[in-house]
Amino acid sequence: MSSSFDLEAVLRYQRRRNAFKAGHASKNRLSQDDESNQKKKVQESSDWTPFEGVYGRDLLPTPQGSARTMQFFLELTDILMEYVRKSNDRSSKVLDFHHPHQLKEEMGHCLELPETARDLEQILSDCKETLKYCVKTGHPRFFNQISSGLDVIALAGEWLTATANTNMFTYEIAPVFTLMEDMVLQRMRQVIGWEDGDGIFAPGGAISNLYGVLVARFRANPDVKSKGLNGLPRMVMFTSEDSHFSFKSAGAVLGIGTDNVMAIKTDKRGKMIPAELEKAIVAAKIDGAVPFFVNATGGTTVYGAYDPIDEIADVCEKHNIWLHVDCAWGGGVLVSSKHKHLVKGIHRADSVTWNPHKMLGVTLQCSAILLKHKDLLAHCNSMCADYLFQQDKNYDVSYDTGDKAIQCGRHNDIFKFWLMWRAKGDAGLESHINRLFDLKRYMLDRLAAREGFEMVLEEPECTNICFWYVPRCMRKMAPGPDRDYKLNLVAPRVKGLMMEAGTTMIGYQPHGNQPNFFRMIISNNASTKSDIDFLLDEIERLGEEASSEI
Amino acid sequence: MSSSFDLEAVLRYQRRRNAFKAGHASKNRLSQDDESNQKKKVQESSDWTPFEGVYGRDLLPTPQGSARTMQFFLELTDILMEYVRKSNDRSSKVLDFHHPHQLKEEMGHCLELPETARDLEQILSDCKETLKYCVKTGHPRFFNQISSGLDVIALAGEWLTATANTNMFTYEIAPVFTLMEDMVLQRMRQVIGWEDGDGIFAPGGAISNLYGVLVARFRANPDVKSKGLNGLPRMVMFTSEDSHFSFKSAGAVLGIGTDNVMAIKTDKRGKMIPAELEKAIVAAKIDGAVPFFVNATGGTTVYGAYDPIDEIADVCEKHNIWLHVDCAWGGGVLVSSKHKHLVKGIHRADSVTWNPHKMLGVTLQCSAILLKHKDLLAHCNSMCADYLFQQDKNYDVSYDTGDKAIQCGRHNDIFKFWLMWRAKGDAGLESHINRLFDLKRYMLDRLAAREGFEMVLEEPECTNICFWYVPRCMRKMAPGPDRDYKLNLVAPRVKGLMMEAGTTMIGYQPHGNQPNFFRMIISNNASTKSDIDFLLDEIERLGEEASSEI
Repeated sequence: MSSSFDLEAVLRYQRRRNAFKAGHASKNRLSQDDESNQKKKVQESSDWTPFEGVYGRDLLPTPQGSARTMQFFLELTDILMEYVRKSNDRSSKVLDFHHPHQLKEEMGHCLELPETARDLEQILSDCKETLKYCVKTGHPRFFNQISSGLDVIALAGEWLTATANTNMFTYEIAPVFTLMEDMVLQRMRQVIGWEDGDGIFAPGGAISNLYGVLVARFRANPDVKSKGLNGLPRMVMFTSEDSHFSFKSAGAVLGIGTDNVMAIKTDKRGKMIPAELEKAIVAAKIDGAVPFFVNATGGTTVYGAYDPIDEIADVCEKHNIWLHVDCAWGGGVLVSSKHKHLVKGIHRADSVTWNPHKMLGVTLQCSAILLKHKDLLAHCNSMCADYLFQQDKNYDVSYDTGDKAIQCGRHNDIFKFWLMWRAKGDAGLESHINRLFDLKRYMLDRLAAREGFEMVLEEPECTNICFWYVPRCMRKMAPGPDRDYKLNLVAPRVKGLMMEAGTTMIGYQPHGNQPNFFRMIISNNASTKSDIDFLLDEIERLGEEASSEI
Repeated sequence: MSSSFDLEAVLRYQRRRNAFKAGHASKNRLSQDDESNQKKKVQESSDWTPFEGVYGRDLLPTPQGSARTMQFFLELTDILMEYVRKSNDRSSKVLDFHHPHQLKEEMGHCLELPETARDLEQILSDCKETLKYCVKTGHPRFFNQISSGLDVIALAGEWLTATANTNMFTYEIAPVFTLMEDMVLQRMRQVIGWEDGDGIFAPGGAISNLYGVLVARFRANPDVKSKGLNGLPRMVMFTSEDSHFSFKSAGAVLGIGTDNVMAIKTDKRGKMIPAELEKAIVAAKIDGAVPFFVNATGGTTVYGAYDPIDEIADVCEKHNIWLHVDCAWGGGVLVSSKHKHLVKGIHRADSVTWNPHKMLGVTLQCSAILLKHKDLLAHCNSMCADYLFQQDKNYDVSYDTGDKAIQCGRHNDIFKFWLMWRAKGDAGLESHINRLFDLKRYMLDRLAAREGFEMVLEEPECTNICFWYVPRCMRKMAPGPDRDYKLNLVAPRVKGLMMEAGTTMIGYQPHGNQPNFFRMIISNNASTKSDIDFLLDEIERLGEEASSEI
């Protein structure tokens, strides 16, 4: 492997830098004269100059900027790796919480956009200052979001992506990445159980879901593309009351209207009731509306419920309605022979949203919309811009993906996923998923064994676990509004104290008429059983502290 | 500055690695026995082991994975910096062109998604193999796209962004980045000339434009959000025939219909004719439609025309229609006192799309939608998801931006821009823009001075330059269909030969009834006058080569 920067030189540079710093550090003990002598000596004895007084304009593409650029990125790598190391250090805090006004004050000048250039010393300092206040989403005790953990191979992939700095719309300027996207999408479809089809990576699950609704609307009535919705009968779509808010959002954006996004009842476990779906479809038809889209969720955001896809597919087939499966979160089970049963019937869907940046642990962002149908996506979205998608190019333009997208420029979200898949193999992806489910089992057992923890849902299907902590002083209260009122205050208080302590992080929320509860998400590749124990200890500790004020 | 990895150790490691490699390289000359002895000797004499047989699972978060992770990222930085260095090396090709089927063959196994894990030696090799076939969009002779060049400070920002790996939806998990976004948006609005307002970074200019249309539709009729478009009068929008295709796309997506996206005529220079706009608005009203949105473009994609914003604003005010300015491309002039006149009147707009990843040279992606109105964006898009946007949090939740977005998870596109602004200052941004316009002037002069080049548009406003190359054998042909037919073949042929030569890259296209012409884009921070000369020489050389086949 060739080395583009001379490590001997780097080492010399680092030694001199340290010497210079040492000189600086001792300067308070020196007289003015001594100080300038000291500085002079350091400078004389070395060909190294610090980043003070060196600017971005002194780096590449300036000729002779090459060595400086290497040095700058070496320093940066140093800073970033220190952050990664700390993120994995349990003795390091998950976050150093500041209220917005405090953070503005702390960062002060460093936040401002200056009139004139800041030197590279300042730029590197800015980077360190920024990282100081970041929430370490890769910390083993960060459980706050569905996307957590830091897969370092995916991270490496994203560094390369940033360095390659290209757009995904044509093979012309992204030859390797468009091939990779094509191949990975094909594999994802195989895993779903489709022989053929189409798909594209989109900026997040909400947009992937919007793609699903958009293509379904086009299938139901291709004229909508040119004529619009006015003058048409009311179109309606169906999704469970526990599904992600992006379906209501898609309804709003696409001109369907949120009132026409029908929320279908779920059972106690948060799973859509197929009979309720059929009732709603029939009612809508009687009402003169046109049902065109049903979403079944594979892993709801709060309870982690998997809707019964097969039964929902029966209803959709009977009424000839597009079936979309939103397994943005829970789709990870598709790569596990042990847990794949949770999405049984998914091959019957017309479209699927699946975010590798969630359960599979790819870094942000990586979300795919997959379609069973071959050309629908292009027909639906094509605008034939002739400055990008010339048909008289010198290569096979079927590899130009841009005309399928509702974006024009499209970020390269594929390389990091592809690289991670190379590094783990199918087997590694599967064991990652199985490990998360094992940790869920562990946590359920711990919750059952400990005092003061109550389950919102006894046996969650995915790796979400929803529970209350009931402080000691409340444990003898009778169920009812008084207890609920108090219980509703516990989680936000605990969360507030937790953020200030910075020791761990978990989300909370109300749901339906349930008071605020904690929503644990097990998706972090760094977390172990001991981290789960730590979290429960911490909730208990802070819960007791909070209870004195409730 | 502290060092998280011991450079002495790194150097030792590198020496041993080189020794090991040297051993490997000479193994063809050794007998089997000699080889294993040699290997043994290298291994015995060192505590270093190669990445062969070391896997992603041996890196962080595995305990004791820390040192390995540092080594891995050092190797990666080495590989990536070599790419950056080559991208800036004029003796290096812009691309190594392969047809899709050839590239698949060349990359072979390396492209496949394996059943079992590949070791880190292979992963690093995958990275090198990938970069080998990438198009060097930062090469000084890459002129193919509106986004080109590689600002290394922005690149550093993106490495940090990837490492911080967080989502932009809440202050809770992106405290620094949400503050930065708030501050940068505020400054962008100031530059436009608004005292107050709102905005958000979006995944590309097409989505930013879609946001503009979406909010305009909401302002025109807030009920659309809940009721949808059915049963409403036909809504129509207006944009010039030379504007970006994303307005037609937004019309399709939002249920307006592409037929209701009225293409307003432009003058010879590609600028919208305000009188034509007013005619179209009046005609639509007479037809019973509801005009709700006008777009004026600040720098069209092909000709680089700036629509006359002030005159268009007069029309919009008269008819009470939302005015959007799409200066995704040409908005860079806003930071230049010399060229800002091109968007005179922009402060009268209701919304503006501005992509710092285009003329300002931020790396991909960085696009903002800016609004003069304060709360409209939130009212339009808010879905109040209570698992993300709890109102009983311990901090000021007005800093949670997620409920303004049509996405849920949102990529951090702000840090790289913020860091670049810090490194350049207002002054540096301005001189970057002025330099691009100076280069445009140079190129126009060169085109006028050289034989065989004909202008599509004599005096372009932005840094786009559209021109034909007329091979010698065609220079005496009379204007007309025969000449046009032949001329139409020249640019694609030259482009094909150019890609195979890999020496430089420029786009081409037809426009209206004009035969294919070259579209030069000057936005690359690495390009100089000599690169422009090189391009013209190369077009002439390849044009003559191509002409023999036409």
